[in-house]
Amino acid sequence: MSVREIIERHPRPISADHDLLLRCIEECFDCSATCTACADACLGEPGVSELVRCVRLCSDCADVCHTVGRVVTRQTEVDTGVVRAALEACVAACRASGDECERHAPHHDHCRVCAETCRRCEQACSELLASM
Amino acid sequence: MSVREIIERHPRPISADHDLLLRCIEECFDCSATCTACADACLGEPGVSELVRCVRLCSDCADVCHTVGRVVTRQTEVDTGVVRAALEACVAACRASGDECERHAPHHDHCRVCAETCRRCEQACSELLASM
Amino acid sequence: MSVREIIERHPRPISADHDLLLRCIEECFDCSATCTACADACLGEPGVSELVRCVRLCSDCADVCHTVGRVVTRQTEVDTGVVRAALEACVAACRASGDECERHAPHHDHCRVCAETCRRCEQACSELLASM
Amino acid sequence: MSVREIIERHPRPISADHDLLLRCIEECFDCSATCTACADACLGEPGVSELVRCVRLCSDCADVCHTVGRVVTRQTEVDTGVVRAALEACVAACRASGDECERHAPHHDHCRVCAETCRRCEQACSELLASM
Repeated sequence: MSVREIIERHPRPISADHDLLLRCIEECFDCSATCTACADACLGEPGVSELVRCVRLCSDCADVCHTVGRVVTRQTEVDTGVVRAALEACVAACRASGDECERHAPHHDHCRVCAETCRRCEQACSELLASM
Repeated sequence: MSVREIIERHPRPISADHDLLLRCIEECFDCSATCTACADACLGEPGVSELVRCVRLCSDCADVCHTVGRVVTRQTEVDTGVVRAALEACVAACRASGDECERHAPHHDHCRVCAETCRRCEQACSELLASM
Repeated sequence: MSVREIIERHPRPISADHDLLLRCIEECFDCSATCTACADACLGEPGVSELVRCVRLCSDCADVCHTVGRVVTRQTEVDTGVVRAALEACVAACRASGDECERHAPHHDHCRVCAETCRRCEQACSELLASM
Repeated sequence: MSVREIIERHPRPISADHDLLLRCIEECFDCSATCTACADACLGEPGVSELVRCVRLCSDCADVCHTVGRVVTRQTEVDTGVVRAALEACVAACRASGDECERHAPHHDHCRVCAETCRRCEQACSELLASM
């Protein structure tokens, strides 16, 4: 993703660990897109009524990851309290969505992919949080 | 806002306090729109370089309030852990943005309006959190 | 909505018709919230499999109205070509979502409310477009 | 991006050209993240007052690309009219943002990267539109 190239050219000094920050940004945006796609794939399944909770949690996770991806991307006038609370919300959303997708992974391959993506994002946010 | 009418017609039982929930939803969406407008108004000021932190925090707050407004609006298969973490992120974003706008309120009337809106949203989120 | 108060205090001159602009901004944000709520209410219905198209089109409309609400709210350095194309996308999304919700209005009161909201937003965007 | 893996496992038949669709999805989400980062990098420059138009157009482009990325990702109950209007809005937003970033590319490396990303996204949307 070319967002990485902008972060490397940012005019303000970046206090966060570069590798953890970039990984978190990329996982947040990837997870947002993947959860959007998984919610839609669930909606397109013949057995959608079994997947209602999955659609709901993936929709939340798509929204939360997108917003947190933006908050973490911005490096001008960082407010640590806001970043920290945003990352914690992302961990909660990824965990709930990852748990639910994991339940459907044996039956729906898109849920298996989405569960793995949510786990990676949850971990990237947790690691950035721990480093702050 | 007509979102209120949908919540009142929702097919699933709603466990949250109705008045606190509706107030929180409306304040989140109002604060998101208001912070978008205030970030843009700051950007349009001749002294924009004094308002860089305000643009940044209002941009975060606009994104967070929008996402949290959506999470709180959804009443199908509610996950309390996600809602709680989302509301906490919203309180943090509104507080940071409200504090910064308050500093500029004597000079910029749009910041005064935005600060008041952030305070209302912060309080509505805090009250819904406390009731859960 | 307090976004109206910011527009009235914006430092840059506003070339659009004030009443049409403010109505468009408010309808876009209201329609975004309402479509988010209607997609979720449809998802919570026992007969969700009959409402799959409605969930999909309301999800699109919620996203499009939110983004177009932001584009139209911003009054610093307006690019008419971007505003025009955004409004046209909003008209298309509101029409598709309004048509689909109207089909379900006799059975689901939330779809009736959402259809009316989509019609109002479609009209507000069309009128702002026509005035440009 | 793992969104690609979900599209390949989607339960509904996909009528669009797979390669053009996947490229469009990835460019939209990449451009959304990159424009968010460029708007923030511009805001962090000492000469922010020269970059006001760039912040505004990158903010619009970030929002439009995110929403259009979602609309194009969803493959359940596709409405061609909505997709077409959304892609046209994305072309307009990327063109405006790409043109403005290009003007600043000689002075700001983040604007050079962002301009290239906007051009790629504009082209990917145009090619998907042309194939429909």
